[in-house]
Amino acid sequence: MRYLVTGAAGFVGSHLTDALLARGHSVIGYDNLSTGQERFLDAARRSDRLRFVRGDILDSSTLRGAMKGVDAVFHMAANADVRGGFAAPRVDLEQNTIGTFEVLEAMRDAGVMRMVFASSSVALGEPDVVPTPEDCAIPRQTSLYGAAKMAGEGLIAAYAEGYGFEGYAFRFVSLLGPRYPHGHVFDFVKQLLADPTVLRILGDGTQRKSYLHVEDCVRAMLHIAEDRRTPGTPGTFEVFHLGVPACCLVRESAAWICDEMGVSPRLEFGTGNRGWIGDSPVVFLDVRKAMSTGWAPQHSIEESVRQTVRWLLGNRWIFDRR
Amino acid sequence: MRYLVTGAAGFVGSHLTDALLARGHSVIGYDNLSTGQERFLDAARRSDRLRFVRGDILDSSTLRGAMKGVDAVFHMAANADVRGGFAAPRVDLEQNTIGTFEVLEAMRDAGVMRMVFASSSVALGEPDVVPTPEDCAIPRQTSLYGAAKMAGEGLIAAYAEGYGFEGYAFRFVSLLGPRYPHGHVFDFVKQLLADPTVLRILGDGTQRKSYLHVEDCVRAMLHIAEDRRTPGTPGTFEVFHLGVPACCLVRESAAWICDEMGVSPRLEFGTGNRGWIGDSPVVFLDVRKAMSTGWAPQHSIEESVRQTVRWLLGNRWIFDRR
Repeated sequence: MRYLVTGAAGFVGSHLTDALLARGHSVIGYDNLSTGQERFLDAARRSDRLRFVRGDILDSSTLRGAMKGVDAVFHMAANADVRGGFAAPRVDLEQNTIGTFEVLEAMRDAGVMRMVFASSSVALGEPDVVPTPEDCAIPRQTSLYGAAKMAGEGLIAAYAEGYGFEGYAFRFVSLLGPRYPHGHVFDFVKQLLADPTVLRILGDGTQRKSYLHVEDCVRAMLHIAEDRRTPGTPGTFEVFHLGVPACCLVRESAAWICDEMGVSPRLEFGTGNRGWIGDSPVVFLDVRKAMSTGWAPQHSIEESVRQTVRWLLGNRWIFDRR
Repeated sequence: MRYLVTGAAGFVGSHLTDALLARGHSVIGYDNLSTGQERFLDAARRSDRLRFVRGDILDSSTLRGAMKGVDAVFHMAANADVRGGFAAPRVDLEQNTIGTFEVLEAMRDAGVMRMVFASSSVALGEPDVVPTPEDCAIPRQTSLYGAAKMAGEGLIAAYAEGYGFEGYAFRFVSLLGPRYPHGHVFDFVKQLLADPTVLRILGDGTQRKSYLHVEDCVRAMLHIAEDRRTPGTPGTFEVFHLGVPACCLVRESAAWICDEMGVSPRLEFGTGNRGWIGDSPVVFLDVRKAMSTGWAPQHSIEESVRQTVRWLLGNRWIFDRR
């Protein structure tokens, strides 16, 4: 099979590209390298079944050119800077909402009907029900990123209804693992490398969050949207929550990070239980629907955090990238 | 107070403009006249408190110019052609999703913080729960129009969270009354004027839908988002369902229309319980939240249908408008 992966040089996209190649498939890796890292594709580039196309999803002519002969699209490209949304509100609209529309239109133009979409727990705002199931109440959006991800889901569902697309949206919790490019583990390790005596934590430390190892995430998507799909079922749209069936306190995560780095900093907490505007104090998804398909995460949160720290310590270039 | 009404020459916008003027307010009526009708503002134009600006909401410089000194925005402008969405998918994205974003940005630029938004029951897809409350499960979108309206809600909620906006989204059922420009009553009356012996009905006639008189809709918005609001409460976003606490079968509506016109056509039904792709066979909202504020609709569905027929028969130019 031939897949197009948008955001192929990103955190999730590059792991997905590796996994698709390992299964013997061909991959068009599409990325504008705005935040993606070419070296994330170093392993993949050793395969002659990878074709890398440097392009923006908003550049519909390049995108349409790359779409020829593709069986399915994994749409992972996005602005992933949730915190920065309110400083530049047009970014999430353009790169996430309009970007998803342009990918769908390029697919329609080329007759490609299957879309796997990286959505996010952020699109659930601050849910009343925890752990949060897929069919929770319509959220009140608290970030432009979340609003754009939910808008993307809506577009894909409509394309399923109107054009017979087959769509899968996976709402991830925050991901961890090799190639991890941003987030609290990144911030904590960076701080502790600069000064191992103090660790400043956004919020009061009571936030409870779930995390998933990126390889578990990729395995779930391939299991559900590839291995277990029913071929020839147009007009379907399914949403799955992906995470581990557990969560941790930010202070627990800080303790694992410090232990892994062998440091004992003084912890300085902020105030309030939100790290930034749009941060949800609790992120804990009900992942029973995904697990009922036979998928199960292989890494605990602690293992994922510790492995991420080790990867960051061995790849310090990531702190200095543009 | 000074209000900006987008889509002021449209069905809802023109009634809203009339009501705001009748309350003694000043209104900037903003409309690109793509579907709005100048003669819908004939009454409003007799007031020197109306300033009409012909402009597109996507034209941010004209929009920003009109926003000066405005206290609140009623954002009613939209592509309202739900059925046509899949023939031209960019229209709902541009006019509804991006359009709402541009209105929000123009407001932010001018320091206008209060937005009242015309959302729609269509954004609920085909809900499992009927009558459908505001906090129903996240819908699977079945139309690009619905996807865009939900995207608009998400943007407004995020602007409330991030910028302290005060937002109100009203999900309307289909509206009826004077200036009614499209929908099943329009189609039926048009057919029966051309040939009173036969009436072709989309779908098998089992569809159950609720309708609301446009004046009841406008009264609800002004009651909830004006009279009952708590001034100085930034960062709020509230959703209300608007309809009557009842629904009717399309064949009942057909019978009232025929009776009002004095005709007895043969009825020809289609197949299936959807009139078109994206049509929901049941539209019936739980309106208890809106009614708990003290608002109640004054017109029954039958009264609204009959009054709409009489208005159409007295305003046949509407069938020939571009």
